[in-house]
Amino acid sequence: MNANPKFLAATAHVDDAAVKPLPNSRKIYVGPLRVPMREVSQADTPSMFGGEPNPPIYVYDCSGPYTDPAAKIDIRSGLPALREPWIVGRNDTAVLPGPSSRYGIERLNDPKLAEMRFNLKRNPRKGKSNVTQMHYARQGIITPEMEYIAVRENLQREQYIESLKGKTGEKMRELLLKQHRGESFGAAIPEMITPEFVRSEVARGRAIIPANINHPESEPMIIGRNFLVKINANIGNSAVSSGIAEEVEKMTWSIRWGGDTVMDLSTGKHIHETREWIIRNSPVPIGTVPIYQALEKVDGKAEDLTWEIYRDTLIEQAEQGVDYFTIHAGVLLRYVPMTAKRMTGIVSRGGSIMAKWCLSHHKESFLYTHFEDICEIMKAYDVSFSLGDGLRPGSGYDANDEAQLSELRTLGELTKVAWKHDVQVMIEGPGHVPMQLIKENMDLQLKECHEAPFYTLGPLTTDIAPGYDHITSAIGAAQIGWYGTAMLCYVTPKEHLGLPNKKDVKDGIMAYKIAAHAADLAKGHPGAQIRDNAISKARFEFRWDDQFNLGLDPDTAKDFHDETLPKDSMKVAHFCSMCGPHFCSMKITQDVRDYVEQGMKEKAVEFVKKGGELYSRS
Amino acid sequence: MNANPKFLAATAHVDDAAVKPLPNSRKIYVGPLRVPMREVSQADTPSMFGGEPNPPIYVYDCSGPYTDPAAKIDIRSGLPALREPWIVGRNDTAVLPGPSSRYGIERLNDPKLAEMRFNLKRNPRKGKSNVTQMHYARQGIITPEMEYIAVRENLQREQYIESLKGKTGEKMRELLLKQHRGESFGAAIPEMITPEFVRSEVARGRAIIPANINHPESEPMIIGRNFLVKINANIGNSAVSSGIAEEVEKMTWSIRWGGDTVMDLSTGKHIHETREWIIRNSPVPIGTVPIYQALEKVDGKAEDLTWEIYRDTLIEQAEQGVDYFTIHAGVLLRYVPMTAKRMTGIVSRGGSIMAKWCLSHHKESFLYTHFEDICEIMKAYDVSFSLGDGLRPGSGYDANDEAQLSELRTLGELTKVAWKHDVQVMIEGPGHVPMQLIKENMDLQLKECHEAPFYTLGPLTTDIAPGYDHITSAIGAAQIGWYGTAMLCYVTPKEHLGLPNKKDVKDGIMAYKIAAHAADLAKGHPGAQIRDNAISKARFEFRWDDQFNLGLDPDTAKDFHDETLPKDSMKVAHFCSMCGPHFCSMKITQDVRDYVEQGMKEKAVEFVKKGGELYSRS
Repeated sequence: MNANPKFLAATAHVDDAAVKPLPNSRKIYVGPLRVPMREVSQADTPSMFGGEPNPPIYVYDCSGPYTDPAAKIDIRSGLPALREPWIVGRNDTAVLPGPSSRYGIERLNDPKLAEMRFNLKRNPRKGKSNVTQMHYARQGIITPEMEYIAVRENLQREQYIESLKGKTGEKMRELLLKQHRGESFGAAIPEMITPEFVRSEVARGRAIIPANINHPESEPMIIGRNFLVKINANIGNSAVSSGIAEEVEKMTWSIRWGGDTVMDLSTGKHIHETREWIIRNSPVPIGTVPIYQALEKVDGKAEDLTWEIYRDTLIEQAEQGVDYFTIHAGVLLRYVPMTAKRMTGIVSRGGSIMAKWCLSHHKESFLYTHFEDICEIMKAYDVSFSLGDGLRPGSGYDANDEAQLSELRTLGELTKVAWKHDVQVMIEGPGHVPMQLIKENMDLQLKECHEAPFYTLGPLTTDIAPGYDHITSAIGAAQIGWYGTAMLCYVTPKEHLGLPNKKDVKDGIMAYKIAAHAADLAKGHPGAQIRDNAISKARFEFRWDDQFNLGLDPDTAKDFHDETLPKDSMKVAHFCSMCGPHFCSMKITQDVRDYVEQGMKEKAVEFVKKGGELYSRS
Repeated sequence: MNANPKFLAATAHVDDAAVKPLPNSRKIYVGPLRVPMREVSQADTPSMFGGEPNPPIYVYDCSGPYTDPAAKIDIRSGLPALREPWIVGRNDTAVLPGPSSRYGIERLNDPKLAEMRFNLKRNPRKGKSNVTQMHYARQGIITPEMEYIAVRENLQREQYIESLKGKTGEKMRELLLKQHRGESFGAAIPEMITPEFVRSEVARGRAIIPANINHPESEPMIIGRNFLVKINANIGNSAVSSGIAEEVEKMTWSIRWGGDTVMDLSTGKHIHETREWIIRNSPVPIGTVPIYQALEKVDGKAEDLTWEIYRDTLIEQAEQGVDYFTIHAGVLLRYVPMTAKRMTGIVSRGGSIMAKWCLSHHKESFLYTHFEDICEIMKAYDVSFSLGDGLRPGSGYDANDEAQLSELRTLGELTKVAWKHDVQVMIEGPGHVPMQLIKENMDLQLKECHEAPFYTLGPLTTDIAPGYDHITSAIGAAQIGWYGTAMLCYVTPKEHLGLPNKKDVKDGIMAYKIAAHAADLAKGHPGAQIRDNAISKARFEFRWDDQFNLGLDPDTAKDFHDETLPKDSMKVAHFCSMCGPHFCSMKITQDVRDYVEQGMKEKAVEFVKKGGELYSRS
C-alpha cells in the first residue's frame, strides 16, 4: 500500500537539533511534582559596571524531556506517562479491552498498516463517570494537575526574589524586580498563583486544563486570561505533502521554541497513524478538528457526513488522547446565507464543510443537534471543547460582521450547555480584524461567552502582506492578548501560500512568543518583566552571551551578532558593529553614571536651584 | 590613502535587482506635475466566480526613477533635478560660488579624495530670505511641492472609483470600496487631500515637507498625522563596516520596498563623500544626525566639540542637501543625572555625546544655547528639525520616565522657538515602551509638542527577542501609528546585534510597511482599504498572481507559494497546498454562494420564520 519511507516506523527518529539544550540553559524539576523549568544562568557583571553576580532566570519550558540530556529519547517508544498515577489514583476510570471506535478497531487490525503503526502497548481508558478537571474543580477538588500548574505559572518568582537578598544591593534589586503597572481590562491576575486559584478559575469556566486521560504523557498547562498567555502551533500534513516523521519533528520543533499546545490539522494520508505518533511523543496538549478526518471517511463529500461517522471519529480520537477538539457547532443554517454577501465567504474549513452539509440537507448540523451527546463523550475522557468559529472573517472586509457575531452568540449558548455537563470550553476567534475593531471583538466574546477563554488565530490586521502574515497577525495577536485572549494560535509566513516548513514553524512561534509576552507585560502579569529586566541589564553591561541566551532564540541572536563581528575577542568587546569602538553610547552612559556618582549630584542640585536655564528665549 | 575598491567612484553601479519593475506593475506619472505612482494591473475574475474585469490598483511609490524602465540610471551622474525649476522660480535663492563650510571646502580641494568624489557640477544654493515650506504656507502660498503631495496622497482614488462605474455591478463596487469606520483619536483626515489642506497643515506645524533646496532630486512627500503614515529606513556605515556603493545600494533597496525617507547614520570613514553619493541619487528626503560627523572631526572626544565645529557641519550638510537634521537640543544639564538610576542609561548616541559634553563643561549644550542660530541656518536651506530624543528609554524598564518626559517638554518649548522662525519641526520618540504605556506617550507628545509630527523608533514592546526586534517593534509601531505618530523609523532584525545587511533592511521595511498600513486602516484613512479589498478578492477568486502582485513583496509571496506547489499548472489551480484539491474552503464557499443565490434565500427566510432553532435545550 505504501512504500514511502517517510511513513515507516523503523526510520522514525528525532532530529538532533530539536533535543540539544539551549546554551547556558539547564532543565530543572521543581518540587515533589517535578515541574519542569528552564534555568538560564548568567555571567557576573564586569568590574567596570560594578562587578556582581547575576542570579539565574527561570523561564517557562514546554519542550518536555527532549531538552533534558538525562532523558532517553526514542520516539518509537514515546514519552513516559507522567500523569498515569494521578489518573489511576482518582479511581474513576476503566481500562478498555481495546479501541471502541469502529474505525480504530479497523485500523488496529489492518496488517497493511503494521509498518507505520506506533507500537502502543497501553489500552485506552474511559471515565466511569465525569472525569473532567472542571468536574473535580466544581466539587472543590484540587487535582495534581492544578498543583502542577500553580508551580509552573509562578516560575520560581518567590525563590528568585529571595535569591537576590544576599547577592545584590538595594538598587540592583530594584533594577531586577521593577515592573510597570499593567492595564488588564478587568482580568484579575493574582500576585501569586495558588492551586486553589487554579481550581476556582477552572470551576468558573474562565480557564481550562486540556488533559485527556488517554494522554498521560502531557505536562499539565492552563489556558485562561488570568494566567500567562499561551500560544498554539499548527502542524499536519495535507493530501499533497508531508509524512509521519516530519510531523513528529514539527511537533518537537514547535515545543522547543515555545508552542504551548500543538494542533494536528492533518487532512492527507494516514492521519490516524500520524496522530498516534504525535500524541505518544507530545508533552503538550494536542488539539484536532475531528470533522477533517470524518470528511476523509466519506471521501471528501460533505453532504455524506453523518452523526454516526462523526461520533465514531470523536471516540477514536478521544481514545488516542486528543486533548481538545475544535467543533464548529455554531454554524447554524440561518447564518449561512449571511456569508453570501461577504468578500471572502467562509474560510474556515470546518465551517465551510458544515455550511455545505446544512444547505444540502436543509437542516441544522448534527454538531448542533447532537451537542449534548458530544458533551457525554467529552466528559468520559476529559476532552475540552474548542468551539470553532466556522464563520470567522477571511478578510478585514468581513471582520465583526453579522455572520461572525451571530455565530459567537451561539457559541456562548453552547458554552452554557457544555458547562452544565462540567465540560471544559474555550472559544475560537478570528482571523482577520483591523486594529480598531479588535477590542470590540474581545469585549463581545467576554460578554457573549461568559468569560470562557478566547483562543484566536492572529488576528491579521491587514491583508496586503502575503509572505509576512506572521507579522501582520502578531500585531493583532499582541493586542487581543492584552485585551484578554488566553491563547494565540500562530500564523506562519506561509499563511495563504502553502504549508509551513520547519523554518516557517519557528518564525511563526517566535512572532507569537513575542506577542504573548508583550501581552503579559501589558496586562501586568506579576514577574513578567523579570526576563526583560535581566536581558536589558545584560545588554547594558555588554554581557553579549547573556543577552543571546536570555532571548527567545539564542542561536539567531548569536549568528546575527557574529555576522558583522565574527571574532571571538569581539564578543567580550564593549561595543558592537552599530557604532564601532569609539562611539558607543553605552560606554558613554557608564561614564555619565560614574561622573554623576562622583559628586555631580550636588552640582546639579545647585544648578537647578539657580533656575536651571541658561538659554534665554528672547 | 584608500585603496579599498568599495570607496571608488569608477566601480559604483546600481544593483539590477533594485531597478527591475515589480511584476505586473507599471510606473505612471499623474498630472502636469508628473506625480509617480505604481499601477498594479490584475487579471479578470475567472468565470466560475462571475467573470469580470478587475481594475488596476494604484499604490504609493517612493522608488523614484529606478523602477521606470524608461529612465536612464547611472549613479555616477545622479538623478534629474526635478524640483529645480520650482526652486529657481521662487526667485528667493542665490547660487553660491562653492561650499561655504570650511570642511566642505577642504574636502573639495583634497586631491586624495578625487577617486571617491561624486562628480557634482551644481553649486550649492542658499536662501536670500526664509525659504521653508512652512514660511510659504504661512503666507498663504501653495507651492508646487504642496500640489504634488496632494496628488500623491490621494492615490488616484477618485479615478479608481470612477473607473468602477462602467465595469462592475453595484455589489462588486461595494466589495471593492467598503471601508470600516476608523478611530483616529482626534486626527482630522479629510476625504480628499487638497493642496490647500496640505498648506494649512504645514502652516499649522502639524505636518512637514522635508525639502532642502539643495536636494532638488527629491520627490515631495509629507509627514503628518492627517496623511498616510510614513516609514524611515536607516542606513550608514560605521568604523568597522561598509563602503560607498554599498550604502547607495542600501538606499535604492530601501526605497524600492517602501522607505519614505532614508537616514544616513554613517559614523565611519568618508562620511562626507558617502552622503554626497546618497543624496545625489535619492528621490526621497535624506536625514542625518550632524553631531556624528562633528564628533569625527574632534576624533571622537565629545568634550572637544564646539559650537563652531557643529555649525560648520550643519552648513556643510545643508549645502549637500540633507533634508532633515536630528538635533538633540533637549538634553539639558539638569536632566542628565536623572538617567543615572536607569536600567540602560542613555542609549541615544547623540544624547550620550551631548550629556557627556554638558557634564564635562558643566554647562548647557551649544545645541540648546545656540538654538536660534541653528534656526537661522535651517531656514536658509529649508532643512527641517527632527528634534532628537537623546534621553529616550533603552529598555521597557526606563519607558516614560522622568528623564524622557522632561526632555519631551523641552522639545515642545524648542518647537515653539523653531516655529517662530517658520522652521519645520518633527519630534523623535522612543524606543522601548511596553504596550500599555504607548498611548500615554503619544498623548503627552501631542500635548507637550503642540501637535508637531511625532517620529518614533518602534517602539519595541518587549526586550526578550534579540534577532526579532523588527517584530517586537512593529507591534508597538502599528499602535503608536494608529494613535497619531506620523512617521515610523524602522528597526531591523539586527537591532542590538550588528549592522543590517540588504536582507535585514528589506525585512525591517516590510515589518514597518505593515505597521504603517495597519495604522492607516485603523485611523480610517480614506481609501486605505482599497488594496486590502483587492487582494482579498483576488485571494477568494484564486487569482494567485494578483494576490502576489498586490502584496508588499510579490517575490517572496510567489517563492513561498512555489515551494510547496512548484508546478506552473498549480498556480492557476483552484486550491493550494494547505488543504489540497478536495478540501478547499474557498471552493466550498463558492458552492454555498451559488446555492444561496439559487433560491436558498427564500428557504432560509422560511426557516427563520419557523423559529430557527432545531436544537432544543432540555
